[in-house]
Amino acid sequence: MSELTTVEKLKDFLDNNDEDAFQSFYEDANPIDIAEAVKEFDDEEIIKLNYFLSDEQLAMVLEQADDDTRERIVEPLTNNRLLDIFSFMQKDDIADIVGELEIGQRKQLINLMKENDRKTITELLKYPEDTAGGIMTTAYIALKGNLKVSDGLNMIRSIGPKTEVIETIYVLDDKKQLVGYADLRDILIADKDTPIFDITDENVIVVTPETDQEDVAKLVSKYDLKSIPVVNKKNSIIGIITVDDIIDVIEQEYHEDILELAGVNKEETLSTPLIDSIKMRLPWLLINLLTAFIASAVVKFFEGTIAQVVALSATMTIVSGMGGNAGTQTMSIMVRQLSKEDLTLEKCLKPLWKELRVGLFDGIATGFVTGTIVWAMYQNFYLGLIIFIAMILNLIVSAFFGFLIPVVLKSLHFDPAVASSIFLTTATDVLGFFIFLQLARIFLNRII
Amino acid sequence: MSELTTVEKLKDFLDNNDEDAFQSFYEDANPIDIAEAVKEFDDEEIIKLNYFLSDEQLAMVLEQADDDTRERIVEPLTNNRLLDIFSFMQKDDIADIVGELEIGQRKQLINLMKENDRKTITELLKYPEDTAGGIMTTAYIALKGNLKVSDGLNMIRSIGPKTEVIETIYVLDDKKQLVGYADLRDILIADKDTPIFDITDENVIVVTPETDQEDVAKLVSKYDLKSIPVVNKKNSIIGIITVDDIIDVIEQEYHEDILELAGVNKEETLSTPLIDSIKMRLPWLLINLLTAFIASAVVKFFEGTIAQVVALSATMTIVSGMGGNAGTQTMSIMVRQLSKEDLTLEKCLKPLWKELRVGLFDGIATGFVTGTIVWAMYQNFYLGLIIFIAMILNLIVSAFFGFLIPVVLKSLHFDPAVASSIFLTTATDVLGFFIFLQLARIFLNRII
Repeated sequence: MSELTTVEKLKDFLDNNDEDAFQSFYEDANPIDIAEAVKEFDDEEIIKLNYFLSDEQLAMVLEQADDDTRERIVEPLTNNRLLDIFSFMQKDDIADIVGELEIGQRKQLINLMKENDRKTITELLKYPEDTAGGIMTTAYIALKGNLKVSDGLNMIRSIGPKTEVIETIYVLDDKKQLVGYADLRDILIADKDTPIFDITDENVIVVTPETDQEDVAKLVSKYDLKSIPVVNKKNSIIGIITVDDIIDVIEQEYHEDILELAGVNKEETLSTPLIDSIKMRLPWLLINLLTAFIASAVVKFFEGTIAQVVALSATMTIVSGMGGNAGTQTMSIMVRQLSKEDLTLEKCLKPLWKELRVGLFDGIATGFVTGTIVWAMYQNFYLGLIIFIAMILNLIVSAFFGFLIPVVLKSLHFDPAVASSIFLTTATDVLGFFIFLQLARIFLNRII
Repeated sequence: MSELTTVEKLKDFLDNNDEDAFQSFYEDANPIDIAEAVKEFDDEEIIKLNYFLSDEQLAMVLEQADDDTRERIVEPLTNNRLLDIFSFMQKDDIADIVGELEIGQRKQLINLMKENDRKTITELLKYPEDTAGGIMTTAYIALKGNLKVSDGLNMIRSIGPKTEVIETIYVLDDKKQLVGYADLRDILIADKDTPIFDITDENVIVVTPETDQEDVAKLVSKYDLKSIPVVNKKNSIIGIITVDDIIDVIEQEYHEDILELAGVNKEETLSTPLIDSIKMRLPWLLINLLTAFIASAVVKFFEGTIAQVVALSATMTIVSGMGGNAGTQTMSIMVRQLSKEDLTLEKCLKPLWKELRVGLFDGIATGFVTGTIVWAMYQNFYLGLIIFIAMILNLIVSAFFGFLIPVVLKSLHFDPAVASSIFLTTATDVLGFFIFLQLARIFLNRII
């Protein structure tokens, strides 16, 4: 017999109302794994879960759960229970939960909070969730620079357990403005009377609450930071972003890129309801349909030629298809490059020239193979020659558009990942058909 | 006048042999930015850079430079200079540099090292660069659990500055086996006579040196770790992997996925030399060519039908193209899902059923639009009806293959990102043409 999974075990305990077994399993498990398992619970099981777990335990599960699961756990809870649970949670996580509630309950809850909490939560709720303000935590350590190291260390001892990072201590001046950071290593070895200012590194990289989370991720990744402070216009520190949240941002952004390149809404997952999936994907398919009609119109334009040489209709799809593939290769490299750095026009010329030459050589190679096979299949040298030339031209054109479309979209402040492929396939289909069929028309009396 | 960039300034200093200006610029800059700028230096400038910078400064630049740049900096250096520079570097970075040298120089260098260093470097060089062993650092803190907290803190003070992480202290038993970890927060607030064992959390997640770096990244990301220990078969800690290296792994893996989905070798960048780009991309295009010929053969099979109704050749590309797009949507969601978790066959059935229904509805919607337009354009109701039915069938088929191909590839231990799209386009093209043209043949006397 195979062993029961975490989900199955937990469901068993809940269904049998076995609180003790549930508790003892919880003690040995990681809240992250519990949160993972809760995804699979039905509504009744979630109500029992809320009943079985203490406020502190539920707080830990909530901190680890994804948005959907969190909403399902919170839904049946009373405001009072929620406030008890909040007392065990970080402010940024509380803000995330409160932000998802409907406006009425949100106001009620915030009004029930203590003055201080209310201020912090309201402040955090102001920032969109994909900005530095939206992902920052207020659980950091900032000390005045004129404190002695020994006093600083005492404060770190007392605040430390409630913070997410203790390796980096942010240092403030008298006006509470951020002047730099001190490394806990230096604090530990410094003479106890040294003012913290003396071991402060003023070379600190900061972001504002409005900074896009993707830009924050780039900074953290580039400079190998463990945390990055968020400052307001007065240069006061209002929060920090820790590296584990940055990992989430990076994973999210790249997953989005992969989906958007394929014309899938970045919010969609395998468990998105049917009707939402259709709503998200259909518009994209309809746009694609428009471009398919443009390509079809090009073919229709050459119907007279095709009527005389039916073989053209079987071979034209090879040219357009290969153009699409080659163009997608170039485009993917560009999208990747543009997600790492901006390319100035000047920097573009050399790589564009290279891509065009790749198109030329790949066109010669694939065109030669295709031309030879077509020549042999249809016993028609000129048909082979036409497809050879068309392939070369179309692969150069594809390289050109595969390179340029993402650059142009980015310079117009669109996300190159979203819309590049639709423009690219339009270009490679339309031009692929046109080049091939126009050549066929010119050489018509040779291939008839 | 526009301001000079970092690169331009540094190049100016080097070209004018202005060592002082170079030094004072270096002092204010971040080694990461210097390393970034060095990418643009020519060989002569790199030789001057090596001359201008001290061993310690060059060590810092080397630690931040990418593989290419590092090789170019190291190339002109003598073994003795390299050893001096190594004395300022972490062992894992040294191993990375030594690993890239040609075998002769590598042996010379290792033989010149001190006994201890030689052992560590040789050990590190044993692991492939995409495994836990290949990305781990040996700069961590591990203490025996029976040490008193006060003694532990003294050791942390003395070792700390040389380590990458001090928040997490790994705890060993008498046999030097890993038993857990202690949080520096707890060490700072514990009574000084407490043995470290008493504040040790034994619930520690470990990897072996052979673990694939992608699996390490998944663990670190899932459990929000700041570092993860690498242990050998005897459960002795031999290194740790820090979260900043994990970010590099995640970025690398996702970039690779985006490229591989498009049939581009994961090693390729915009600056890959022409000949290498062609070598990497051409094989993929040739495989695609094969599948294009299969699709073309299907069309050729129906040449008789097309000869009688030329309009088919303009409209058939719409059906196959839309199938490709819709299938790619499903496929991308699957590839993303599979990169996050494994799907058992049982878990597949429900989402597959959903995807098929999405295909049905999207097929009805796009088929209806297409059918109506084609009916109006060609003044032929049956041609419109055929394309309506073909679109529905092809979008269901595309959903089926878009779903199944990545799952099958993954279960055969292939990377779904690499090969999915080629199988998918083959399926959607071949079946798209076949369904449409077969329908046309059946209804031939209605559309002629």
